[in-house]
Amino acid sequence: MAEEKKNEVEEELEETTDNATEEIDIPEVSEVEELTSKFNEMEDKFLRARAEIANMSNRNKNEREQLVRYRSQDLGKKLLPAIDNLERALATEVNDDQGTSLKKGVEMVLESLTVALKEEGITEIKAEGEAFDPNLHQAVQTVAAEDDVKPETVVNVLQKGYQLHDRVLRPAMVIVAQ
Amino acid sequence: MAEEKKNEVEEELEETTDNATEEIDIPEVSEVEELTSKFNEMEDKFLRARAEIANMSNRNKNEREQLVRYRSQDLGKKLLPAIDNLERALATEVNDDQGTSLKKGVEMVLESLTVALKEEGITEIKAEGEAFDPNLHQAVQTVAAEDDVKPETVVNVLQKGYQLHDRVLRPAMVIVAQ
Repeated sequence: MAEEKKNEVEEELEETTDNATEEIDIPEVSEVEELTSKFNEMEDKFLRARAEIANMSNRNKNEREQLVRYRSQDLGKKLLPAIDNLERALATEVNDDQGTSLKKGVEMVLESLTVALKEEGITEIKAEGEAFDPNLHQAVQTVAAEDDVKPETVVNVLQKGYQLHDRVLRPAMVIVAQ
Repeated sequence: MAEEKKNEVEEELEETTDNATEEIDIPEVSEVEELTSKFNEMEDKFLRARAEIANMSNRNKNEREQLVRYRSQDLGKKLLPAIDNLERALATEVNDDQGTSLKKGVEMVLESLTVALKEEGITEIKAEGEAFDPNLHQAVQTVAAEDDVKPETVVNVLQKGYQLHDRVLRPAMVIVAQ
């Protein structure tokens, strides 16, 4: 086996001696193997890093979108009692010009608040006359369904509910026909 | 010259044939050089990718913090006219119980709005009695400074200003003593 190998190498030698004037520095095989392995390892690290960059980029884009989409959730939620109170104030009967003027002012404020909330994606949850939906409505009372009302229908709203896009900020408090 | 080289190689061959059972694949020098260069290039790409990951991570953290810190800027700004109107409504004189009750309701609403805005970092800009600051105050009128008032002092506020943390949502409209 050793002899056979020797002959093979000698044959190769005959072919290569023609340009043997070049300095032949024979590197060890292990050097190439080592380099190849190091290269593959580094390439693998690079590819992982590149994938991580793509992932981070997508993740951050989504996070930013979510933050912007729901940015008014906290302030919006805190405004709901103010809106309730304005609506309650508007239910007050007034008897004179001053009262009427005050009421008109309150109406304008309520209108501007509602518009501001709507622009941020906060809208009233539809309730009266709608089919009862436990995700949007909170039943606080049930009544027997009359002839012209289907069962499981909201017949009265005790407190308005609000949602920010698809998120419920506060469910509507309702009376349901059964 | 070619003959000399051949002898040298043959001598080496004698020494190596002992372990010639191993496959001897003689790599060219250029292969090592090429691999080294490829490795360095890949390492460079990897290091750049790693730096980019660190940069992205910092950038995104900052962006998120900014988005959260100023998230209520748009809704907050839109609420300012509502607050102005509520304050104007409260300036109305009332003569009877209904008016008083309505006014009390409006006061509560104004209070709850102010608290909600404050919790989001929106506060009234200090103006009356302060040194005039063109970043915070908009002078709409000047008056001669009286004896007990320093020049360039805000003596009257025509419309309240508001800021969200360090950002001015609306400057205060003021009268300045000169």
